[in-house]
Amino acid sequence: MKIITSVAFATLTLSASSLIDTAKKAGLEPIPNSKTELMKLIDNPKNPLTDAKVQLGKKLYFDPRLSKSGIISCNTCHNLGEGGDDGVSAAIGHKWTANPHHLNSPTVYNAVFFDAQFWDGRDPDLEKQAQGPIQAHPEMAATKEHVEATINSIPSYIAEFKNAYGSDVKISFEKITDTIATFERILVTPSPYDSFLHGNENALNQAQKDGLKTFMNKGCATCHTGISLGQSMNAMNVTATYKYQNVGDFKGDANGMVKVPTLRNITQTAPYFHNGQIWSLKEAIIEMGRIQLGSSITDKEASSIETFLKVLNGKKPVLTMPILPASTERTPRPDMN
Amino acid sequence: MKIITSVAFATLTLSASSLIDTAKKAGLEPIPNSKTELMKLIDNPKNPLTDAKVQLGKKLYFDPRLSKSGIISCNTCHNLGEGGDDGVSAAIGHKWTANPHHLNSPTVYNAVFFDAQFWDGRDPDLEKQAQGPIQAHPEMAATKEHVEATINSIPSYIAEFKNAYGSDVKISFEKITDTIATFERILVTPSPYDSFLHGNENALNQAQKDGLKTFMNKGCATCHTGISLGQSMNAMNVTATYKYQNVGDFKGDANGMVKVPTLRNITQTAPYFHNGQIWSLKEAIIEMGRIQLGSSITDKEASSIETFLKVLNGKKPVLTMPILPASTERTPRPDMN
Repeated sequence: MKIITSVAFATLTLSASSLIDTAKKAGLEPIPNSKTELMKLIDNPKNPLTDAKVQLGKKLYFDPRLSKSGIISCNTCHNLGEGGDDGVSAAIGHKWTANPHHLNSPTVYNAVFFDAQFWDGRDPDLEKQAQGPIQAHPEMAATKEHVEATINSIPSYIAEFKNAYGSDVKISFEKITDTIATFERILVTPSPYDSFLHGNENALNQAQKDGLKTFMNKGCATCHTGISLGQSMNAMNVTATYKYQNVGDFKGDANGMVKVPTLRNITQTAPYFHNGQIWSLKEAIIEMGRIQLGSSITDKEASSIETFLKVLNGKKPVLTMPILPASTERTPRPDMN
Repeated sequence: MKIITSVAFATLTLSASSLIDTAKKAGLEPIPNSKTELMKLIDNPKNPLTDAKVQLGKKLYFDPRLSKSGIISCNTCHNLGEGGDDGVSAAIGHKWTANPHHLNSPTVYNAVFFDAQFWDGRDPDLEKQAQGPIQAHPEMAATKEHVEATINSIPSYIAEFKNAYGSDVKISFEKITDTIATFERILVTPSPYDSFLHGNENALNQAQKDGLKTFMNKGCATCHTGISLGQSMNAMNVTATYKYQNVGDFKGDANGMVKVPTLRNITQTAPYFHNGQIWSLKEAIIEMGRIQLGSSITDKEASSIETFLKVLNGKKPVLTMPILPASTERTPRPDMN
C-alpha cells in the first residue's frame, strides 16, 4: 500500500543504487565512514583538535559560571540531551529575556558542517560563534573579562589549559571559546541515511527510500544539501506572506540571505523556522514548499518526506557528564541583574 | 610546624585509631564500604531501587520539559556537574524569580542520608521532596497535569515506565517523582574521610587529622554528625544578630528548627547558610561558632577545620549524559509566562 502510494507521486522510480547516485548528484553527501576522513573534515587547522582540548572544552560547554548570572551555560540553549537545542520558540537568556529578534536556537549537533554560523551567517566557524552568545546580553550576558577572570580563578582549569596548550598559555577569552569549539566539532551524528549513501542499500526501507525520492523531486535538496542537509546561506522568503511572518523582525543578512538549517535530527528540534513558530514537522514541510519552492506539497507527499527525515536521526556521541572544578574565593560572583 | 600549631589548640591528642574511636563516639559515621550495606541504607522499601528506575529517573532529572517553561530541569538548580547545587545565593527559577524566602539550593549529593528534606524539613524523603520544586511557582512552575501530560505524550518514556514498573503502570505525577528520587538515592560520594573512619589510618594526613580533632573539640560535630555530617533538624539561631540575618525571611519550621546541611563536598557548594550570604568557607566556620556554639573560633582553628572539611570532597558517580526522547505533537508546549 505504502509503495503503491509513493510510486503514484514519485516522478523518479529508481533502484536503490541508482537512488544513491541520484542523491549524490543532487549534492547530498554522507558523514564520512572513516575516522581519518571525518577528522579531516571537522578539524580546524587554526585550532587543531586534541583529546585534551575536547575534554576541557566539554567542561567549559557545561559550565554556567561563564555567564554573568552563573546559571546559564552553552548547554542551556544547546542542550545535548535534547536535540542540541532548547525546544522553545525563541531562546531565553539572562533575566528571562527572549531573543530580541525572536530567533530560535539552532542545534549544535553537526553545526561543524556549516561554513557560516548564526541565522544571518555572520560568523565563519564555531570558534568565532562561541564568542557570541556568551557576550550577548539576552543570552549569557558576560564580558570577556568576566569569563577570563572566572577561568583564571580556578587552579584546575589553569592546569588543564596548560596541559592542552603548553605551560606558557595565556588563558584569554578567545582561547576559552576556541576550546569550547573543539568540543562542538566532535558533535556529529551519523545515521542510517549515511549508511545508505555509503552503499548499504538495506539501511533504508522502501518507504524511507520513497521519502528520499519525494524529498528530491519536490526540490527540497536544492537548499537542504551537502553533509548537513542545510546550506551556509541562501535566499529565504522571510518576508513572504506566510502565516508567521510577523513574529520577530529577522530579515536575514545584508542581502536577505538566511542560513538553511540542517535537517539532521530534525524530529528532535521542534519548533521550526528561524522564529520557531511551527511545531509540526509536516506543517513545516508544507509551508517550506509554499514559501520557498512555490509549489504545493500534498499531505501525502509531506508524510513521505517526513518518513525520510526521521532517518536523519543519528547516533549522538556518548558523553560522560563533566565534573566541574569548584570555584575559589577569587571567582567572580554571580550577578543576576 | 603544622603539627605543633595544631597541638597547641587541640585539647585531644590522639593516635589515629583512638581518633577514629573518638569520632565514632561523637556520632560521625562513614558511608558504608560494602555495596550491600550501602544499598540497604539508601533504598526506600516503599520505592525500591532498580536499575531500570534509576536510568529512567536520570533522564527525568535532566529533562527540562517537566517545567512550565521547558527550560528548567532538576539539574538546573541541583547541577550534578557542580556541587549538586547552583552556586548562587538564592535559587532562581521560572521567570528569573528568586526564591521568595531567599533560600539557597541545597546539594542533592548525599541528600539521601537525611530523614527530612528542605531547610524547614517539611518532607520526609526524596520521593516527597521531588514533588516540591517541580510545582513551586518560583522554581519549575509546573502543574501535576503538565508533568503527566508531558511524559505520557512521549512513547519511549511510556515504554521505559512499563519496563520499570510493569505494563499496567499508571504514569502519575507521583510515579514520575518517585522515579526521580530513585536516581537521587544513588548520588552518594565516598571520600578519604570515610576510608579513614573505616580504619585506613593513612587516608588522612596529620593536618587533616588535626582538623578533625579541632572540628570535634570546637563542638561542630554536635550538629554536623552522622553519615551526612548534618542533621535532619536542629535549632538554628536564625534570628541571631548575625551579619546577614536580614537577608530573607526564613525562620525555620514551626518550632524554629532548621535542617543542618551536609558538610560533604562543602568546598563545592558556596555560598553558605540557608540564605547563601557567606561565600568564604572560613568565614562560615567562624560565624557558625559565634552564632551556634557561642564560642569564638580563631583564624587558625578555622583554617584547621577547613583543612579537614576539604577531605569530605567525595568521588561522584560517573554518569553518562542521558539522551532524552523527542517531544511529539501531543507534548505540552513551553509556556514562558
